[in-house]
Amino acid sequence: MQIEPGALLKQINYPADLRNRKESELEEVCKELRQYIIDMVSVNGGHFAASLGVVELTVALHYALNTPYDQIIFDVGHQAYGHKILTGRRDVFETNRLLGGISGFPKREESPYDAFGVGHSSTSISAALGMAVASQYKGETDRQHVAIIGDGALTGGMAFEALNHAGIEKSNLIVILNDNCMSIDPNVGALKEYLTSMTTSKTYNRFRDDVAAVLTKISEIGPDAFGIVKKIEKAIKGSLLKNSNLFESLNFRYFGPVDGHDVNKLVKTIEDLKHIPGPKLLHAVTIKGKGYALAEKDQTKWHAPGLFDKITGEIKKSTSDKPQPPKYQDVFGHTIVELAENNPKIMGITPAMPSGSSLNIMMAEMPTRAFDVGIAEQHAVTFSAGLATQDLVPFCNIYSSFMQRAYDQVIHDVALQKLNVVFCLDRAGLVGADGPTHHGAYDIAFMRCVPNMTVSSPMNEEELRNLMYTAQLDKKGPFVIRYPRGNGVMVDWKKPFKEIPIGKGRKICDGEGLAVLSFGHVGNEVVKAFKELAEKGIHPAHYDLRFAKPLDEAMLHEVFKKFDKVITIEDGTITGGVGSAVLEFMSANGYQAQVIRLGIPDQIVEQGEQKELWQLCRYDATAVVEEIVKLVKPIKADFMVG
Amino acid sequence: MQIEPGALLKQINYPADLRNRKESELEEVCKELRQYIIDMVSVNGGHFAASLGVVELTVALHYALNTPYDQIIFDVGHQAYGHKILTGRRDVFETNRLLGGISGFPKREESPYDAFGVGHSSTSISAALGMAVASQYKGETDRQHVAIIGDGALTGGMAFEALNHAGIEKSNLIVILNDNCMSIDPNVGALKEYLTSMTTSKTYNRFRDDVAAVLTKISEIGPDAFGIVKKIEKAIKGSLLKNSNLFESLNFRYFGPVDGHDVNKLVKTIEDLKHIPGPKLLHAVTIKGKGYALAEKDQTKWHAPGLFDKITGEIKKSTSDKPQPPKYQDVFGHTIVELAENNPKIMGITPAMPSGSSLNIMMAEMPTRAFDVGIAEQHAVTFSAGLATQDLVPFCNIYSSFMQRAYDQVIHDVALQKLNVVFCLDRAGLVGADGPTHHGAYDIAFMRCVPNMTVSSPMNEEELRNLMYTAQLDKKGPFVIRYPRGNGVMVDWKKPFKEIPIGKGRKICDGEGLAVLSFGHVGNEVVKAFKELAEKGIHPAHYDLRFAKPLDEAMLHEVFKKFDKVITIEDGTITGGVGSAVLEFMSANGYQAQVIRLGIPDQIVEQGEQKELWQLCRYDATAVVEEIVKLVKPIKADFMVG
Repeated sequence: MQIEPGALLKQINYPADLRNRKESELEEVCKELRQYIIDMVSVNGGHFAASLGVVELTVALHYALNTPYDQIIFDVGHQAYGHKILTGRRDVFETNRLLGGISGFPKREESPYDAFGVGHSSTSISAALGMAVASQYKGETDRQHVAIIGDGALTGGMAFEALNHAGIEKSNLIVILNDNCMSIDPNVGALKEYLTSMTTSKTYNRFRDDVAAVLTKISEIGPDAFGIVKKIEKAIKGSLLKNSNLFESLNFRYFGPVDGHDVNKLVKTIEDLKHIPGPKLLHAVTIKGKGYALAEKDQTKWHAPGLFDKITGEIKKSTSDKPQPPKYQDVFGHTIVELAENNPKIMGITPAMPSGSSLNIMMAEMPTRAFDVGIAEQHAVTFSAGLATQDLVPFCNIYSSFMQRAYDQVIHDVALQKLNVVFCLDRAGLVGADGPTHHGAYDIAFMRCVPNMTVSSPMNEEELRNLMYTAQLDKKGPFVIRYPRGNGVMVDWKKPFKEIPIGKGRKICDGEGLAVLSFGHVGNEVVKAFKELAEKGIHPAHYDLRFAKPLDEAMLHEVFKKFDKVITIEDGTITGGVGSAVLEFMSANGYQAQVIRLGIPDQIVEQGEQKELWQLCRYDATAVVEEIVKLVKPIKADFMVG
Repeated sequence: MQIEPGALLKQINYPADLRNRKESELEEVCKELRQYIIDMVSVNGGHFAASLGVVELTVALHYALNTPYDQIIFDVGHQAYGHKILTGRRDVFETNRLLGGISGFPKREESPYDAFGVGHSSTSISAALGMAVASQYKGETDRQHVAIIGDGALTGGMAFEALNHAGIEKSNLIVILNDNCMSIDPNVGALKEYLTSMTTSKTYNRFRDDVAAVLTKISEIGPDAFGIVKKIEKAIKGSLLKNSNLFESLNFRYFGPVDGHDVNKLVKTIEDLKHIPGPKLLHAVTIKGKGYALAEKDQTKWHAPGLFDKITGEIKKSTSDKPQPPKYQDVFGHTIVELAENNPKIMGITPAMPSGSSLNIMMAEMPTRAFDVGIAEQHAVTFSAGLATQDLVPFCNIYSSFMQRAYDQVIHDVALQKLNVVFCLDRAGLVGADGPTHHGAYDIAFMRCVPNMTVSSPMNEEELRNLMYTAQLDKKGPFVIRYPRGNGVMVDWKKPFKEIPIGKGRKICDGEGLAVLSFGHVGNEVVKAFKELAEKGIHPAHYDLRFAKPLDEAMLHEVFKKFDKVITIEDGTITGGVGSAVLEFMSANGYQAQVIRLGIPDQIVEQGEQKELWQLCRYDATAVVEEIVKLVKPIKADFMVG
C-alpha cells in the first residue's frame, strides 16, 4: 500500500521547501506530518509516540533555523521521524529500521541534517556544546546549535556535566527541554517533580510571563537589545533571589515554559533565541503521542507499539495459535519475583526500563523492593553496590549496550569490593532493528577482563532461571547473566530451580571429529545445525560453556584431549570474546587445535532483523553447518597436487 | 623518627574514645589531629591538603554519630586521613600507601569504619543512598548514612543522578557538601560559580539564617517537630519562589552554608540533622589545606606534595645531579602545544586534571583551545566528539582508570561515528601508591574489542611524540595512545616528528630461540633483561608491537615463521589484553607456538611502588630473564627418565 503524504507535505522535500511556506501554513504542515507518521508507523512499525510529541518543535526548528548549517541534535533520537521526513527521507521512510534501510535514529552518514548520531540517552548537550565551541573558535557567529533533550534524558548524569560546562562557555548554545514527563516509562526522580512544579506554579508562571513579555520587545529595540533586556530582567527579578531556578543556577538563561504544540509561537520564540548570545534553555511542554488519542492515554504501550490498525488502534499480534516461548525479559521478570518471595534479601533495580526489562512485574508486586532510578546507569550500579554492602542481593537489570555507561562503577564499586550484585544484561548480542547503537556486542570482552567477576549466559529459559537462582545463593560476588532480546525456546519453562556450580558447563551431545563450544542462546542455532548435519552423517559434539568466566577447565581439558578441531560461537564480539578466552586456556595448557571463532566481527553491524544479522555475521545455523562441513570434509585440493 | 600524637589524640584510638571527651575539648583534638597529619605526611608523603580541610568535619561526624553503625562515605577519599587516624589506624599510619600498608583511600576490608571503598569521584551519594534504603527496608530507623562530597566531585554526573533519585526516596540520607572550590586543580563550571554566589549573597544568607534559627528550636519542640518546622519554613518562604535553590529543586532540605572549621557548631548541626527525616544537604564551606599556610595558598601544589620540611615548607626533590628523563605527562603537555602551533585544528580537553595531565601548559599558552571541563569524563568524550564533527582534532586526555567512566561515550559517540578523537590515556598500567582504584589495568582489553579503534602505546618519549604527531594527521578515526604514570627513559627526547604508519610495529633487535613482543613502556624492562641475558649467552629477539590494534600482521608472520617460543609482555590485564590479540592472530593464521603472556594477572593488584608491583606481577626485567631462561634452557627432567 502506497502511503500518500498530504498536499503540502508532498511539496516539502527539504527544509528549504518548508521555509518557502507561509507561517500561516505551518499548522497544516504539522497536521500532515503527524498523519504521515501515523500512516507510516502503523504499517511499518517503529517508535511512535515520541515523534508525535515533537512534530511542532521539529517543524518550527527547521522553519526558524538555517539547517543543515544550523545544527539540530536530537537526544536519543526516538523522536526524529518527523525530522527525517522533512529532510529528504520521506520517500524512503518505509525502509525505516529495515536491513539496508534508513536508521531509526539520526545518523551522520545518512544525512547532513543528522548533525550527530544518537541512540543512547543524554549525549545531546555535550555534542552540541562541542559544535558550538568549534563554531565560536572558527568565528561562525551566526551559526546555531540546538540540543533537544527530554526531561527523562536530562536525568542522565552526563547531561548535567554538560550543563555545568556549558554554563561557563560563551558559545551560542540552545537547549530545548522537551518536557513530556515520559521516557519509555513514566519518568521518575526529583527533577521530574521539580519540572512539574515549574509548569504548574502560578507565581512562577506569572513571573515567567512578565519576562516573556519583555523579551518579545527585543526585535523592536534593535542592536543593543541584549544589554537592555538584561537590565529589564534584573529589575523584574529585584525582589526575588538570584539564580531562581535550577537552570539559571547553572548560568543558563531560561525561557518558558511554552506550549510545545503551538508551532507559530515556537517559531517566534526560536527566532528570538537566535539573537541572544550564550547558553539558553527553552522549556517546552509537550505531550508524548500528541494527536493520536490512544497513544496520549497509554504512552508506554505506544512508545513502539509494533504494527497496528490506525483506525481501531488494535495492535497486531503474532498469528500463531500455538503457545510461544516467552521473551527472556519476561522469564527474568517473573523469576525475580519468585526468588524474592523466598529470599528477603533480593532487591530489583532498573535505570528507566521497567517495561523493557519486565522489572515492572516486581515493581507492582513488591513496590518497596524494586526501584526505577531514572535514566542513570552509573547510579543504578553504585546504588546496587550500596545495597549489597548491607547484605542485600540486588539484581541490577541493564541492557548490555547501556551497561557500557556504568563500566567504571562495575569495576570500581562492585568488582574491587567483591560485592554480591547480580547484573542481568538484557539485550545482549545483536538486538535487531535498533541497530549499532543498541547492539550488546562488547560485554563479554569488557566484563571477563575484570577480576572477581562471574560471567554467564543461559542457553534457554530454564538455564536463565537456574542462573538467577544460583546467583542469589550465598556470597557469589559480582555475577553477570547476559541474555538476548527476544524469545527463548521453551514453551514449558517454569521448572523447579536447580543450582548450577559456578564455572560448570554442560555437554549437550557427544560426537566425533569436531566440537562446538557455544555460549548462551546462540547454542540453539548449533542444535538446529546439528539436525541438518545428522542428515549428512556428520555428528560433532556440542558443549554449552554457560560461563565465559570462570571457564569450565575440566570440560575444556576433555574437549581438547579429544578434538583437534573446535568451533566457538557467541552472540558477541569475536575480538576478546569467549572464543579468545578459549584460546587463552589452550595457550596456558599447551593445547594445539584448529579453532574457528564465530561471533560478531570487528566492524559496526547495522540494523536488521536478528536472524538476518546472525546470518550476515555468520553465526546462525546455516553458517554453523557450512563451517563444520568445511572443517570435517576438506575440499580435495586437487590443484595443489604436483 | 617516631611521630608522637598530641596528649589528647594519644588517648583516642577509636571514635568511642573521642565521644568520651567533652565538647569543649574538640577544638584541641582538631588541632592535634591536624598537626599529626602534617607530621605524618611531611615525612611519609601522600595526599595532604584535602585531609587538612576536613579535620573539623571528621571530628564532628565521629563525635555526633554512632560510627561504625552510622556510616560515613567519603567521596574520592583523598580527605580521609583524619578519619583513618581516629578509627584505629593511627599507629600504622606510617605505612600509608606502601606495599602491604594501609590504603590511601577508605577501603572496606581494612576497617568497619570504612563504609565504602572509594578512589574515583562522585560515587558517595549513590552508595550512601543504597545503604540508607537498605536500612529503611530493614527498619533501622535510627541509623544515619552520610555522604561527604566535594563541590568538585558534585560536577560528576553520577552525583546528580544520585541526587535525583534520593530526592524521591524517603530514606534517611545526609549529604555534606564540602565546598572548598577545589578539586586537585581549582574547580570549574557553572556549579562552582553558583555555590560561590550562594555563600556570598547577603539576601540569600539572611534568609538562610532565618531558617537556621527556626531549626535550632526543633529539639525543644518535641516529637511532631517535623510538621511544625515544615509550616514555619513555608511561612518564611511565602514571598519567595518554591524550590529556591538547586538542592531544594531536587527535594533535598538544604542547610547552610556553615563554617566547616567550627567544630562545635558542626557537632550541633549534625545532631540536629539526625532528627530530620528524608534527604538533607548540609553545605559546609571549608578551606583546602586549612591550618598549613603554604597549602592554603597553593592548593594544587599541596594536593599531594611528596615529602617536605614542615617548618620551611621546602618540598624535597630528587637528589640526582644528572638530568632525568621527563615524565610522560610532560612529554604530552609540551608536545600538544608544539603540534597545535602548526595545526590549528588541534584542541585539548581534560576532565579536571590540568596539572595531572600537564594540559595546563596548553591552557596557559592557548586558553581558547584547551578546556578543563570539570570532573566529567563522559562529557569530556562526547564534547570532544562534537568538536570532531566540526573537523577539529581534539586530544582528550583521561587517565586510563577514569576512562572506564566514559566507555559508552567512546563506543557510541566516537567509534560508531569514526570521529577523529585522540584519546591520550595517562596512568595506563599499574600506577603505584594510589592502588587498585587507580590502576589502569583494563584499557587494552576494553578498547581493542571496539571497531574502528586504533590502540597504541609508546615505548619511550620519542615514540609518544611520534604517535601524537601521527594521530593528528589526516583522518585517523579514534586513536588511543596509552602511556604510564612516571618517567620515560630519554633525557634528550625532543626529536623531530616522524609519522608512524598505523599498525606498524618495530624490531628492537634480532635474535634466536625466542622472541619477546612488548607493548609500551614495559619494553624497556625487556631491554634491561636482554643485557643480563646477553651475559648468559642468550640472545632472543625483541619486537615492539606499538599497536595492540591493528596488529602488525606482517611483523607477526615474520615472528611466528621464525620462532616457536614467544613471550608477550604488557602493562595491562593478561585476560583479553595484547597477548590475547596475538593468540587470536595465531589461531586465525594457523600458527602454533608456545606463548607465555606476561602482564597483570586476573586479580586485584594492591598498592606499592610501580617497580615493586611489576615485580610482584612478574613483568619486570628480572621476571623476563627468569621466564626466558626457563624457556630456552629447560631443566633436564631427570626424574622423568625411565
